[in-house]
Amino acid sequence: MMTAHDVCGHTHAACRSDSSRMRPTVSFYTCFVLSLCLGLACVVCVSVWNSHWRGGFAWDSSSLQFNWHPVLMVTGLVVLYGIGAVLYRVPLTWGQNKLPWKILHAALMLISLVLSIIGLCAVFDFHNAKNIPNLYSLHSWIGIAVTALFAIQWVVGMAGFLLPWSPTSLRVLLKPIHVWMGGSILTLSIAACISGINEKLFFVFSKNPPYSKLPPEAVLANMLGVLIVAFGMVVLKILSTHEWQRPDSRPEDINYTPILQEENE
Amino acid sequence: MMTAHDVCGHTHAACRSDSSRMRPTVSFYTCFVLSLCLGLACVVCVSVWNSHWRGGFAWDSSSLQFNWHPVLMVTGLVVLYGIGAVLYRVPLTWGQNKLPWKILHAALMLISLVLSIIGLCAVFDFHNAKNIPNLYSLHSWIGIAVTALFAIQWVVGMAGFLLPWSPTSLRVLLKPIHVWMGGSILTLSIAACISGINEKLFFVFSKNPPYSKLPPEAVLANMLGVLIVAFGMVVLKILSTHEWQRPDSRPEDINYTPILQEENE
Repeated sequence: MMTAHDVCGHTHAACRSDSSRMRPTVSFYTCFVLSLCLGLACVVCVSVWNSHWRGGFAWDSSSLQFNWHPVLMVTGLVVLYGIGAVLYRVPLTWGQNKLPWKILHAALMLISLVLSIIGLCAVFDFHNAKNIPNLYSLHSWIGIAVTALFAIQWVVGMAGFLLPWSPTSLRVLLKPIHVWMGGSILTLSIAACISGINEKLFFVFSKNPPYSKLPPEAVLANMLGVLIVAFGMVVLKILSTHEWQRPDSRPEDINYTPILQEENE
Repeated sequence: MMTAHDVCGHTHAACRSDSSRMRPTVSFYTCFVLSLCLGLACVVCVSVWNSHWRGGFAWDSSSLQFNWHPVLMVTGLVVLYGIGAVLYRVPLTWGQNKLPWKILHAALMLISLVLSIIGLCAVFDFHNAKNIPNLYSLHSWIGIAVTALFAIQWVVGMAGFLLPWSPTSLRVLLKPIHVWMGGSILTLSIAACISGINEKLFFVFSKNPPYSKLPPEAVLANMLGVLIVAFGMVVLKILSTHEWQRPDSRPEDINYTPILQEENE
């Protein structure tokens, strides 16, 4: 494939002067710190909601076990996942060997996946103990689908990008699918969280006071939904800003960088 | 700002041979046709649900007026919006003057916005007639926020990109925000739809048969949720694929194309 690189004889990254990167770096770090603050606020908010208003936590198939579900899904599937996704965008890491950052990305995503699976176990155990059917609501369909997609994404990503014998041609093929699936999983996890919080509040406030009176707990949980959405928007901003991509990950450069060589640099 | 273009003396688009575009074009049209089919399936599914299972439509503040709400939100805020968003990606339009496509983009988005606002009026009227409070659930918070963001996005987009006296510097500044907000609005509208369908099914099937028994209507509405998610994923794939961007809209090219000149070509 003939490209700009072949004609020009150098990568586009090499064409950029250092000063031109200054402003994107400041705006990147603003977004990155904002995403960390919003992520922390999500974790604090979902923890306070379930410890203070829902009675705390246990692992005894009671409603206290259910309380792990929102905490672990928000912490794992949204916050840790989002932070893990934008890791390569941190310019501080660009001059360095990519391999340790790949391992950290995979490790963060594995922790996120394990927390999500424990979060699913919490709700399945609770349902089974109370003879409540599993997997009937749209919330549960989206939630189970996104966790399954995440597990597949992790296994394929591990095999395709971390195992040293995975061929370059496979990596070039996988990369855009991995990036697209990554963003889609975040979008679906936000949809699953919003529908889950909404559903939970209708269950909790079915009688007195009704949800429509917006008691303090409902305001807190609604605010959690708003924080999740804000966190997701900032992460999607970071992911979608072309200039903030690690230079050797940009589409116009990826065809010319021997990925296996890049691993060993 | 010094860039690859300054050094090489031509745009990257010009570096690409025709044959290198063949495969991306085939894969683009596959995704585009898929998005059209999924969008049509969403509209058919939400219409059948509300006409066949929910009793049809009226504009008399009854529950039949409420039925316009899901139909108009899915058709306007998701399907028409998504199709309008990927319009510039159709390679057939690339060799042509951008202005008519910009007008079509703005027109499709305006229809989508008007349908969404009528969809909101349907539910407000219904609530007011039945003395049901408005805007308390997380679904309604996300829904009203995304419609407001969409209205702001349309007005700012119209003023910034279509009015001929809008300066180039403003357009360069607005463009990444417009693109990011565009994707975010789609993500939030999916979250609003999923939580809305979920909520509606818990209302409808609160007694016999319960939602958990998955009566045929609940399966259809859950399937609508899955179709919306699939449509959103395909649209986000089209939006996020760098190679499918209109060449004069790509980040590495945008700094060198005089946007006002491009309008008048």
